[in-house]
Amino acid sequence: MVKTVGFIVIGDEILNGRTADKNINTIAKAIDDYGFDLVEVRIIGDIHQTIVETVKHLSSNYDYVFTSGGIGGTHDDITFECVAESFGLGVEQNQVAFDRLNEYYQAKNLPLTDTRLNLTKMPIGCGLIDNPISIAPGAIVENVYVCAGIPKIFSAMIENVMPTLSGGQTVYKQAIFKAGVGEGTIGDTIAEFSKKYEQVSIGSYPKFDENGFSTEIIIRSRNKEQLDLCYNEVKKYLDEF
Amino acid sequence: MVKTVGFIVIGDEILNGRTADKNINTIAKAIDDYGFDLVEVRIIGDIHQTIVETVKHLSSNYDYVFTSGGIGGTHDDITFECVAESFGLGVEQNQVAFDRLNEYYQAKNLPLTDTRLNLTKMPIGCGLIDNPISIAPGAIVENVYVCAGIPKIFSAMIENVMPTLSGGQTVYKQAIFKAGVGEGTIGDTIAEFSKKYEQVSIGSYPKFDENGFSTEIIIRSRNKEQLDLCYNEVKKYLDEF
Repeated sequence: MVKTVGFIVIGDEILNGRTADKNINTIAKAIDDYGFDLVEVRIIGDIHQTIVETVKHLSSNYDYVFTSGGIGGTHDDITFECVAESFGLGVEQNQVAFDRLNEYYQAKNLPLTDTRLNLTKMPIGCGLIDNPISIAPGAIVENVYVCAGIPKIFSAMIENVMPTLSGGQTVYKQAIFKAGVGEGTIGDTIAEFSKKYEQVSIGSYPKFDENGFSTEIIIRSRNKEQLDLCYNEVKKYLDEF
Repeated sequence: MVKTVGFIVIGDEILNGRTADKNINTIAKAIDDYGFDLVEVRIIGDIHQTIVETVKHLSSNYDYVFTSGGIGGTHDDITFECVAESFGLGVEQNQVAFDRLNEYYQAKNLPLTDTRLNLTKMPIGCGLIDNPISIAPGAIVENVYVCAGIPKIFSAMIENVMPTLSGGQTVYKQAIFKAGVGEGTIGDTIAEFSKKYEQVSIGSYPKFDENGFSTEIIIRSRNKEQLDLCYNEVKKYLDEF
């Protein structure tokens, strides 16, 4: 069985349009590269009960769950306590996180304000995700990986987590781009190929720009042999245009 | 009561990382501008049952639901039939959509292939969302607005729909950017303001670049008077740094 992943983006700023999310595509690519299936993404606000329920739901439905956002130290950062609550846990000052941050702020000559101390109030007994950028670690609780929302830090955390996950199965893929050819022209035949190759997923993606419509055909499969057979047939058909 | 909105992004290509979504931020901004609350976004794959259930769930929980993606004419475009099924409806050839597309393709001297005809197989009795780019309309079924996934077409459809929705309540907002000041330095006091002004939402957003950490404080409220009071107090505090 292919292992499944759910991703939860937490933050009012995404829902009210102040911030354009950049983390979804980062993690989608990483999950695909490692051979897992990202099944669902949810974007939710900084609302305690919503976060708790969403984490509960996704963590019991998917093999792995990632979250981004809400682990800073300010009043609107409530992800750690919510994820903990999803598993019936509380939060406490994590000694390793505290030691790392204490050293980091001492070196910078910055006081350990309440806001900075909040960064270390993590789910009891959690694992840590290293943060090479701003030190404050992410948390691992059961199958949930709690990451920062800032894209640069999120990417670094994902890079640290992905190699630790087991059970990926490579997805093989091929892409064919047909400039100036719309889906309407080739879609009927592509649909036939899609029926013929059951183990292969064929995606048809229209693009619209100043040159009119173009189409990209993306062929994906975990069965390399079937992928090659399908690709060769589709390629031959499309080369005729 | 403020009217709520849910948004469903439909497409394997977003989940497998092939495509970075651009529509979430577009609609998030539009919804905020019109005074509604975007409560939840879900990204799901091109899977019949998943789409049907997600549309059912969100359309019964929120005042308005938007979808993007899966309304092209190829084999992987199944959004129209799924949304129809969510409301116990079938699809049929929509005569208005057919007439528009027939005229459009005749003028371009393109044949009405099955793939192009599929664009007109819409939920029975649906309303239409005009598409000034590639003509094929979106659909309105009850409180669900079914839009195209191509960003340029999606934006045009959203522009057509938003003015038709009633019941928006303006959100007033102010932003204060503090370069070089991290959340850790100001967060304790910002948390106090957040408690003091219950009708105001204060967001604290860290940014990290080559100059280190900066912070943007976003203050939002539907109560203009409370917003101004809060803004003035926060601004005065932050001006001291």
